[in-house]
Amino acid sequence: MEPKAVNPEMIVALASGLAATRRRRIREKLESVGATVSLVEGSERHYFELRGEIAALQTLSIDSWPGVAKVMVLGESAMHWAPDKAKDCAPIQVGTHTVGVGELTIIAGPCAIEEQERALRIAERVGATGADLFRGGAYKPRTSPYAFQGLGADALPILEQVRRQTGLGIITEVLDARDVERVSQVADMLQVGSRNMHNYSLLKELGQASTPVLLKRGFASTIDEWLMAAEYILSGGNSMVVLCERGIRCGAASRKVVLDLGAISEVKQRTHLPVFIDPSHGSGEAYRVPSLARAAVAAGADGLLIEVHDQPWEALSDGRQALTPEQFDQLVPELRSIRTALGEKKTEYSEHVVESSSGEER
Amino acid sequence: MEPKAVNPEMIVALASGLAATRRRRIREKLESVGATVSLVEGSERHYFELRGEIAALQTLSIDSWPGVAKVMVLGESAMHWAPDKAKDCAPIQVGTHTVGVGELTIIAGPCAIEEQERALRIAERVGATGADLFRGGAYKPRTSPYAFQGLGADALPILEQVRRQTGLGIITEVLDARDVERVSQVADMLQVGSRNMHNYSLLKELGQASTPVLLKRGFASTIDEWLMAAEYILSGGNSMVVLCERGIRCGAASRKVVLDLGAISEVKQRTHLPVFIDPSHGSGEAYRVPSLARAAVAAGADGLLIEVHDQPWEALSDGRQALTPEQFDQLVPELRSIRTALGEKKTEYSEHVVESSSGEER
Amino acid sequence: MEPKAVNPEMIVALASGLAATRRRRIREKLESVGATVSLVEGSERHYFELRGEIAALQTLSIDSWPGVAKVMVLGESAMHWAPDKAKDCAPIQVGTHTVGVGELTIIAGPCAIEEQERALRIAERVGATGADLFRGGAYKPRTSPYAFQGLGADALPILEQVRRQTGLGIITEVLDARDVERVSQVADMLQVGSRNMHNYSLLKELGQASTPVLLKRGFASTIDEWLMAAEYILSGGNSMVVLCERGIRCGAASRKVVLDLGAISEVKQRTHLPVFIDPSHGSGEAYRVPSLARAAVAAGADGLLIEVHDQPWEALSDGRQALTPEQFDQLVPELRSIRTALGEKKTEYSEHVVESSSGEER
Amino acid sequence: MEPKAVNPEMIVALASGLAATRRRRIREKLESVGATVSLVEGSERHYFELRGEIAALQTLSIDSWPGVAKVMVLGESAMHWAPDKAKDCAPIQVGTHTVGVGELTIIAGPCAIEEQERALRIAERVGATGADLFRGGAYKPRTSPYAFQGLGADALPILEQVRRQTGLGIITEVLDARDVERVSQVADMLQVGSRNMHNYSLLKELGQASTPVLLKRGFASTIDEWLMAAEYILSGGNSMVVLCERGIRCGAASRKVVLDLGAISEVKQRTHLPVFIDPSHGSGEAYRVPSLARAAVAAGADGLLIEVHDQPWEALSDGRQALTPEQFDQLVPELRSIRTALGEKKTEYSEHVVESSSGEER
Repeated sequence: MEPKAVNPEMIVALASGLAATRRRRIREKLESVGATVSLVEGSERHYFELRGEIAALQTLSIDSWPGVAKVMVLGESAMHWAPDKAKDCAPIQVGTHTVGVGELTIIAGPCAIEEQERALRIAERVGATGADLFRGGAYKPRTSPYAFQGLGADALPILEQVRRQTGLGIITEVLDARDVERVSQVADMLQVGSRNMHNYSLLKELGQASTPVLLKRGFASTIDEWLMAAEYILSGGNSMVVLCERGIRCGAASRKVVLDLGAISEVKQRTHLPVFIDPSHGSGEAYRVPSLARAAVAAGADGLLIEVHDQPWEALSDGRQALTPEQFDQLVPELRSIRTALGEKKTEYSEHVVESSSGEER
Repeated sequence: MEPKAVNPEMIVALASGLAATRRRRIREKLESVGATVSLVEGSERHYFELRGEIAALQTLSIDSWPGVAKVMVLGESAMHWAPDKAKDCAPIQVGTHTVGVGELTIIAGPCAIEEQERALRIAERVGATGADLFRGGAYKPRTSPYAFQGLGADALPILEQVRRQTGLGIITEVLDARDVERVSQVADMLQVGSRNMHNYSLLKELGQASTPVLLKRGFASTIDEWLMAAEYILSGGNSMVVLCERGIRCGAASRKVVLDLGAISEVKQRTHLPVFIDPSHGSGEAYRVPSLARAAVAAGADGLLIEVHDQPWEALSDGRQALTPEQFDQLVPELRSIRTALGEKKTEYSEHVVESSSGEER
Repeated sequence: MEPKAVNPEMIVALASGLAATRRRRIREKLESVGATVSLVEGSERHYFELRGEIAALQTLSIDSWPGVAKVMVLGESAMHWAPDKAKDCAPIQVGTHTVGVGELTIIAGPCAIEEQERALRIAERVGATGADLFRGGAYKPRTSPYAFQGLGADALPILEQVRRQTGLGIITEVLDARDVERVSQVADMLQVGSRNMHNYSLLKELGQASTPVLLKRGFASTIDEWLMAAEYILSGGNSMVVLCERGIRCGAASRKVVLDLGAISEVKQRTHLPVFIDPSHGSGEAYRVPSLARAAVAAGADGLLIEVHDQPWEALSDGRQALTPEQFDQLVPELRSIRTALGEKKTEYSEHVVESSSGEER
Repeated sequence: MEPKAVNPEMIVALASGLAATRRRRIREKLESVGATVSLVEGSERHYFELRGEIAALQTLSIDSWPGVAKVMVLGESAMHWAPDKAKDCAPIQVGTHTVGVGELTIIAGPCAIEEQERALRIAERVGATGADLFRGGAYKPRTSPYAFQGLGADALPILEQVRRQTGLGIITEVLDARDVERVSQVADMLQVGSRNMHNYSLLKELGQASTPVLLKRGFASTIDEWLMAAEYILSGGNSMVVLCERGIRCGAASRKVVLDLGAISEVKQRTHLPVFIDPSHGSGEAYRVPSLARAAVAAGADGLLIEVHDQPWEALSDGRQALTPEQFDQLVPELRSIRTALGEKKTEYSEHVVESSSGEER
């Protein structure tokens, strides 16, 4: 199936004084790759207005063609995540819980599934506190090949048991296109981790799946790249995509990453997708998690992914950033109270569209 | 006046099998620069424990000395901003307003003072909405020498007039050590901008001043560097320092900077200084400001610095990120309601100091 | 097969004044995960020296355990790429060409295989100029799902034809663990692209392969992470790994990435692996490529990966950074002449191990 | 004196379907700030072509005005550093040495002046090896107020003595606008350090000086910002500016900064200014310096700034990155031999201006 994007617009400034024969040749090339081209005559130089598959056109580096001075894209490309495509997407059902823009979904659980008893104990505890979904890693991507890589397939029956016993929907990471089907049988939502956001083979496979996907932002990826990664899944036919920011790497950061909460308002303006925040990876240390979790809710996040472990200092991975169940118990009511405080009066702020001083409207 | 730091601790791992004569020579060098040295005998290598002026010792690159394997600092250096030095600092009085940890100070006003009438109009408007202090730039650091550089000294009488007419305390930026005295006569608080955080001549001058200082974090500076910049002022004798995070530059950021709200909990744990947030520079666009302002309050910020302009699209600088007075009117009650929601139940989360499974306490 | 690392060393500083019972508990936990522990008594605090699987120990966040003040690793972990493991690795044969430390391997060709005739034309041209290997992408990872994704499997017979006709060994990228076997039948060397450096499923699969691997550094990955990615392949049994730096993302970079030529000397000191440089991705624009290619050779690179296209402005991807064959013809003799100039007199500079002023040796 | 830039070009895309009255208002605003405006009619939207003080226009955030869709600048602004302004700049005389594009100036010396005897000893040694100028810091900007801050004014007579005794021209850093005159009496070239690149008060003062300036790039500044900082000096009337790249901060860098050698070809294409490289700060460790110094020369640098200390492990600052005189002796001939190897055949590579397939020329 060929993914298709429609209807954006591009303006190409030609070199000033470009010969007409040269201009025709550029026009032919543009038309040969499918663009609709119209000439605009300026005072010293001419321009081409293009319509068509702009995302594809952009990859041609038109601005490096002889005779082209510069190129500008006007308006957002019409991707599946564009606000006006919201109607194509049903609300996202994850187990018995509905994820949606304007809701506050709380996902909690340990970084990795270590053993069944512990997993059940944590799940029951966070469920009692009000977590909506349970998270727990079966397959763990680790920087070192010698680090604990997760229980792998052995963790899947444990996750199944957690769901059966607690009723909580399950979210777990999938690392390999070959595992998508198997993991989907257990998971209510599949997580693409930060290190795999650019793994397009995996994204294409998930585009064929019928399980919701939580797509984490790459730890050094721009919002544009993140949205294009979502487009890989959406354009493949799977419309159930939730975005999740988890911190981006930064030269001046004190713990390698900085949680980009500014992404929330930007993604909400540019797309119709829900945006979640992972304050655990975004903090790196447990004592910083509650502050950022509260901030995420106040900023308008639709959900949070919080690591909770009953003995963080014995965790096989990421213990440093896991909350204890007691800390999680304290935090959840704070998050709900912020939500409530903002609830009725939350205002939509748009880009400057304001009365001018003369009272003339835009 | 010589600034002095006291009492931290460093451990120096020596090369394994290092000869005793060599070890003595290293000890002598360490003692010659003022360290108190004690030998610790390991199984394969030996160590030196050091006490003294660790910040100074750190600059000696001891770990590059022949015979030294590695160096580790234990505990935070005892700087003037350390939590246990809180008693040395009185609450910070800015005009008639008291800035403090646990309060929410709202500073608002235009990026730059453009003309008196406009400045007064904006000041009265933000004061009516509940701003505690007025901000407005007289001297503007601009990337281009051809951009509007602020009115300079001509803006100072305008600021004075704003204070007289509205009663709001004034905060304005100082760029040059030579202007500190002059600007202090008008300003209730002096701002060090992001581009000057490493301007140590200016910081030393401010250490001699008796006006409070708002020290913005450098746009690519670590928290350690930021705190050391504060130490330049504090160690000079001026104890009235407020820190302000305004976004750090990042390869993956969509608008050059990412607002590092995680700095709030970290700075609060490591220091006794108030932490403010500048969501305007941290956003880059007005529509992203309210979301980050709310987040900052929820994360525990002690104050906000918000750009407000009555005609953002006519501003001579930074108009793109300025709120209109109407937007500011909507925002302030939201911020106060978050503060209230958290007020009573705000919990202090500390580093993992938790009951172990065996009930043994730490 | 369980990968194993051996023999490094770690020092754990305990909290000062820690109770003996607590200390024993920490010791037990360390021993339970396989560490050999010995106690070192300091003047105010005690330390544990650890030996064992340090890479695994590091993932336990020991420094977040109650009672632990800080942790320091001494010496490099004993990975398969460590200099003293060089003997385990034969020189790397790629087709008829031998890649090695101290040689200068030049790899050239288009970003993507677009059609057979063009591929052959470019291959013959770069072969005549002195390229040692031919590069050309069959599978292309693209940010947008609507961009040209490469010919995929259809490009493989073309690559085979290039080798048959020109005798040049072939290097091409593999994106998906499921393609490793198929691509290996055609390729003399498999490339892991920057976006897949953290794709551990793929790396594990390549560890089982018997084809040499060129491992590009992730566009925002540290050298430590890059070497650990190499360790995934090496520890799996495939000893034929070449590292390739291609630019890292940076907030202040003018074209998103900065080519990190400083990685060359660092990698050479820490490992026995060959280091290649990709000045094309590291430049982003063709006019910047020759300067960085020359720099790479002068810095000591063992090979270069250069994009060459006969009509860059018609390339379906990355045309902006491709050299023309004419430019490549000019460049290659320059590179060889730098190599020659340095050849005999190239000095190994080590870390400071120098005579001290008193003539005492280290 | 008002700095003036002339003659670039900007295109403003208006909102599609914008009312004529609105369009007129935008035109009036543009004309009121000095732009020459001409209307271009497109098929669905209209455009304004602007001429005038584009650098100033850019600061107005025109693209945030109601009714404006987007803005694009065509061509480089006509700054004093633009290639066609080369004729306005005489070659730069530093003491008896002439700095110039196409030459290789080697500057060497310690990070900081520590005492006269040592300064003289190092200066004589590096002079004998072939250094063209001597560097040594009097005023040192240090992250910690407790670190060695340089000897300050006490170092100036020592620098004077070095020049008298060795004949080498002197370059030293100036941190404070108030010191420019005093330091100029001793120095043949004034250095602006990385932390002061955005200190516009200092830059303006240097614009009034008649001493050459070496302007280091900010450690997180873009090339555009760096060139604008140069413009502050040039537009003030001081045409003797040399740029110096010294590494930029980066999340994935192994030693905080990455030396951006790609800046050389870019700066050379966009400006007529000499570009120097500081491989010492760009390396962070001495063993990495020679590789990057060689790379810099091969990349086309016009000069190098190398830290040399006779006892690096006793240096009061930056000892870790200083070469010993012996290492410097080895390095200089290597650098000269690379220069010679490239000398005659060094080619100018321009942006793609190539024969098209039909033989038509651009």
